[in-house]
Amino acid sequence: MASGGKNALQLLRQIVQHGTHSPGFEECLRKIRVLSGGNGSCVCELTLTEEHQNRGGTLHGGLTATLVDAVSTWALLTTDRGQPGVSVDLSVSYMKAVKVGEDIIIDAKTLRQGKTLSFLTVDITNKNGALLAQGKHTKFVGRL
Amino acid sequence: MASGGKNALQLLRQIVQHGTHSPGFEECLRKIRVLSGGNGSCVCELTLTEEHQNRGGTLHGGLTATLVDAVSTWALLTTDRGQPGVSVDLSVSYMKAVKVGEDIIIDAKTLRQGKTLSFLTVDITNKNGALLAQGKHTKFVGRL
Amino acid sequence: MASGGKNALQLLRQIVQHGTHSPGFEECLRKIRVLSGGNGSCVCELTLTEEHQNRGGTLHGGLTATLVDAVSTWALLTTDRGQPGVSVDLSVSYMKAVKVGEDIIIDAKTLRQGKTLSFLTVDITNKNGALLAQGKHTKFVGRL
Amino acid sequence: MASGGKNALQLLRQIVQHGTHSPGFEECLRKIRVLSGGNGSCVCELTLTEEHQNRGGTLHGGLTATLVDAVSTWALLTTDRGQPGVSVDLSVSYMKAVKVGEDIIIDAKTLRQGKTLSFLTVDITNKNGALLAQGKHTKFVGRL
Repeated sequence: MASGGKNALQLLRQIVQHGTHSPGFEECLRKIRVLSGGNGSCVCELTLTEEHQNRGGTLHGGLTATLVDAVSTWALLTTDRGQPGVSVDLSVSYMKAVKVGEDIIIDAKTLRQGKTLSFLTVDITNKNGALLAQGKHTKFVGRL
Repeated sequence: MASGGKNALQLLRQIVQHGTHSPGFEECLRKIRVLSGGNGSCVCELTLTEEHQNRGGTLHGGLTATLVDAVSTWALLTTDRGQPGVSVDLSVSYMKAVKVGEDIIIDAKTLRQGKTLSFLTVDITNKNGALLAQGKHTKFVGRL
Repeated sequence: MASGGKNALQLLRQIVQHGTHSPGFEECLRKIRVLSGGNGSCVCELTLTEEHQNRGGTLHGGLTATLVDAVSTWALLTTDRGQPGVSVDLSVSYMKAVKVGEDIIIDAKTLRQGKTLSFLTVDITNKNGALLAQGKHTKFVGRL
Repeated sequence: MASGGKNALQLLRQIVQHGTHSPGFEECLRKIRVLSGGNGSCVCELTLTEEHQNRGGTLHGGLTATLVDAVSTWALLTTDRGQPGVSVDLSVSYMKAVKVGEDIIIDAKTLRQGKTLSFLTVDITNKNGALLAQGKHTKFVGRL
C-alpha cells in the first residue's frame, strides 16, 4: 500500500499543480507545496512573500481563509468519494500574525464524511508549530 | 452634512484605491468600486471576471471570504474610531453560486462597535438582490 | 389573507407551546412568547429570570445559542416546506450582556431556503432595540 | 506534581459542582461528570436522559452549544490566568445525532491563550470515539 500512497500523493500534487496554474483565483496559491495527503487529509507548505501580505506586512486574513477553503477541498479529494463538493459554511479564527518571509504549514483533515455533508478542519502553523489560525469548512457533497 | 458625507466617501475611495493598488494580497480586489460608505458601512461593486473564478467558472469561495474581510474592514474605517483593527473570527455562509460576467454587490455594516471589539456583517448579492453569501467578521480594536 | 396569517400564527403558537411543555431540553424555553411569525420568520419575547442566568446574573451564553437554534427552527416551520430540518452549523456572536429582569426579543428569519439546505439568521435585542447577540443557523432540509 | 494535578482536578470538580447546582441555566448540566482537567483542558462525561432531548429523542442542539460554552470555560479556568472570560464568538458543527441513553464525552482544550483573547475547541464524541459535534469558542479575557 506504500506505493498506492505514493501514487495518491502524486495524483494530488498534479491536481493542485493544475488547479493553481489555471486561470482563476487559485493562482494566488501557485507557490504552494503539497507535503503529504491521503485518507481525507492534505498538508501543504507556503513561503509567505509580498503578494500574500496585508498593509501590516503579515499574512492577509483573506488569504488565510482561501487556504482553509482550498487545502480542505484538496483533503476531501483524497477520500473514497473523491469529489470536491460545494461550500456551505466556512469559519476562521485568527490567533497570531505571521510575517512575510516565514514558512507556514496548512494541515487539513476530514472530520466526518457523510452521505450529503462533509466536515473539515484546518490548522495553520508556523515552522515552530505555533498555531496561527484554525479554520472549519462544511461542504455539501450530495446530489444537488 | 451632505458635503461631509461626500468628503468621507472620497476619502474612503482613496484608501481603497491605494490599498488595492499597493503590493499585497488585496491587489486581487483592484477592480472593486466603492458605491457608498460612512457611519460604519461600506457598499462596493465588483464585476466578476476569469481571475475571480473557481474550477466551475463561479466566484471562488476564498475570494468571497476575502471580500467579507476587506469590505467590512473598510466599513470599520468609517466609524468615529477610524481604525482597521485585527481579525479575530470570520465566517461565511455560501447560499448561491454566481457566474463570471455578473456584477455583485458587497454590503458591509458595523453591528456593534465596542471599546475593544467590533462586530460586522456583510451581505453579498447579485444585481437582482438575491443573497449569494453572508459573512460575519469580529475584529479586535483595543490596544494589543 | 389576514385570517390566513392569523391562523398561521395560531398554529405556530400551538407548536411552540407543545414543544416547550413536552419532556425535553426546550422546557427551558417554556416561558417564551411568540409575538409574530410566518413566511419564514418568527419573533419571540422572553423575560429573563434567575433560571436563565450565568454566574454573573446575565443571560447565559448557552441559552443564547439555544434561542438561536429553537427560534430559527420555528421560523423554518413557517415556510412552504414546513419541516424543521437538522442542524449543520450554528454560530453566535455575543455583543452585549443583558441582566435578569429584562425582556429580550428574538427575531429569526430565513435568508435562503434551498432544496437541501436552509440558512437562517437571528437577532437578539433588548427592548430599546440594542443588539445583544446575532446568530446564524444552517439546516439540512433534504432527504437523509 | 502528581498531587498538584490531583488538587487542580479536585478544585475544578468543586467549581463545576457549585456552578451546576446554583440557581441558573447551568443547572441543566448538574449531572455532568468531570473526568480530567488542567493546563487549559477539561474532559467531561454526560449520560443523556430525557431532559436533554429534542423532539426526535436525540441530544438537543442548544444543549450541544451549552456544553461547548460551559466545558470550554471550565478548561479556561485551569490555565495560569484562571479567569472565565466573556464570550465573543461561539460556533458548533453538528455531525452525527446521539440518542438518549448514551454517554457522551466533552473534551475541551485551549488552543491559544493571548493577553486579551483566548481560543478554545471542543470535541463531543460517543463512547466509541465517533465525533458527534465540534465547537469553537473565542473569549475575551482582557480588562473590559
